[in-house]
Amino acid sequence: MAITVVGSVAFDSIETPAGRRERCLGGAATYFSLSASFFTQVRVIAVVGEDFGAAQQAAFDARKIDTQGIEHASGKSFFWEGSYLENLNEAKTHTTDLNVFGAFQPKIPDAYRDSEFLFLANIDPVLQRRVREAMPDVKLVAGDTMNYWIKDHRPALLEVLRGLDILLINDTETKMLAANTNLVQAARAVLDMGPRMLVVKHGEYGATAFYGRDGIGARTFRAPALPLEEVVDPTGAGDSFAGGFFGYLASQKELTPGAFRRAMFYGSVMGSFAVEEFGTARIEKLTREEIDTRFSQFRELTHLD
Amino acid sequence: MAITVVGSVAFDSIETPAGRRERCLGGAATYFSLSASFFTQVRVIAVVGEDFGAAQQAAFDARKIDTQGIEHASGKSFFWEGSYLENLNEAKTHTTDLNVFGAFQPKIPDAYRDSEFLFLANIDPVLQRRVREAMPDVKLVAGDTMNYWIKDHRPALLEVLRGLDILLINDTETKMLAANTNLVQAARAVLDMGPRMLVVKHGEYGATAFYGRDGIGARTFRAPALPLEEVVDPTGAGDSFAGGFFGYLASQKELTPGAFRRAMFYGSVMGSFAVEEFGTARIEKLTREEIDTRFSQFRELTHLD
Repeated sequence: MAITVVGSVAFDSIETPAGRRERCLGGAATYFSLSASFFTQVRVIAVVGEDFGAAQQAAFDARKIDTQGIEHASGKSFFWEGSYLENLNEAKTHTTDLNVFGAFQPKIPDAYRDSEFLFLANIDPVLQRRVREAMPDVKLVAGDTMNYWIKDHRPALLEVLRGLDILLINDTETKMLAANTNLVQAARAVLDMGPRMLVVKHGEYGATAFYGRDGIGARTFRAPALPLEEVVDPTGAGDSFAGGFFGYLASQKELTPGAFRRAMFYGSVMGSFAVEEFGTARIEKLTREEIDTRFSQFRELTHLD
Repeated sequence: MAITVVGSVAFDSIETPAGRRERCLGGAATYFSLSASFFTQVRVIAVVGEDFGAAQQAAFDARKIDTQGIEHASGKSFFWEGSYLENLNEAKTHTTDLNVFGAFQPKIPDAYRDSEFLFLANIDPVLQRRVREAMPDVKLVAGDTMNYWIKDHRPALLEVLRGLDILLINDTETKMLAANTNLVQAARAVLDMGPRMLVVKHGEYGATAFYGRDGIGARTFRAPALPLEEVVDPTGAGDSFAGGFFGYLASQKELTPGAFRRAMFYGSVMGSFAVEEFGTARIEKLTREEIDTRFSQFRELTHLD
């Protein structure tokens, strides 16, 4: 079943201990779409500027991603510059130029209306809510957010959370959102805010799924991550996780508890590929066979017998 | 098969967000012994002062731990005071009084000589090496160390590593020992220093086993930890992990790769109990049934099907 995703399509300049790259194709919706496209049809809602050219479009086309919802505006695309020199787990942001994204008004193409899955990538919760309300008939809605919205746009974010089935955030964001430093207690508080499922991403340690009382997958579940020999660029790992997770769910006929557990593993798998090269390079050239091989490795990693 | 452990038996004063306790029974050899005693016979080599009385002795006796190798010296026992107010994952040490431990010369009782398993808890590597050399016929030797020895006693520590089968340390210690911030690369470097297996403890995220070329368990393996609702006191979690891990191995007829994987889970289980109450309180009153119930929960936690 098709996923519609709304979020940023951007250019990123990134510095890590492995080197520096200028103006890679980036943005949460980009990583999410590329990752989810290995599992299902993906449709993007975003805005780009005049600097978004044939090379960038080709990355989406190669993965058969529907981009008719990407609006082309005059001006420059969203630009982010960041580094991970001291800590590979946390980006230090040097520049955030919203550019055409500053006046973004998401428009949903008619052809997207029958999407059964909706992903609200990390953008202004006011926009997330608008898209959510414009697609009331979707079967499952997941979303992401970040510290900036949690700290300074809490009321708008809380309204988004009430309309979410699944929230995917990291440890720090979970604890910040709940104002509680114990992960389990914080997770329960976040589930009380609306989502039926909370996926907490732990970076190199995998991710944990927590469920609310009417929970989808019932028991708390942890997907491990493979310890990686080399992390070249952590940018987009979380969005790639979300793409693998939600893309796999959308590919399933029935959303059983087992499907949610496997989705957690596929999320972890896609996140682990994302960091192996700068920007989207590794995800762009992945094959489904590589994905399934790593899925088996991850299963082996914690399998007792 | 019996395990001999050498290490500290101490009194700890501990402050955590859950409260404060004065002079709990503590020390690496204590946590290790109590934890391992659920799986096999344990024999302790340590030194205590006149403040070690009937109440402390009773904790060992209740678990049928052989304490004839605990020397009683005149003076006070090792005393540690620490807090975890800002970060539950890392203790802030306020006081370390070696007391009778400062002149500790490990003596191995004759009755310990047939131990097939030896655990060198975190003490001066010069003493670890002396005990290791005095027990050349053991079947499997594991050990622990800490940042202090890694930084300031490196040559002595490297000699200990050459005589170890298994080293159990945490992420920070692994990276510090290898002078490499990538865990997988650091693990390989540490394995090149001597141990055939390296167990890296990740606190609330579980632990990973890495193997050298002639590795015992072959493939990298990660044991998850259960996300805990309440961490009362992290003191001794690592030593309790080591006790569960090594105790389980010592209880096995054959050291198969599967036995090492299950040992990782039992380590994780014992670490998770240790933090539920102050000091050794939770471990002291555990039952084997509770241990096996949690083992099943941990297995479920990452089990796909």
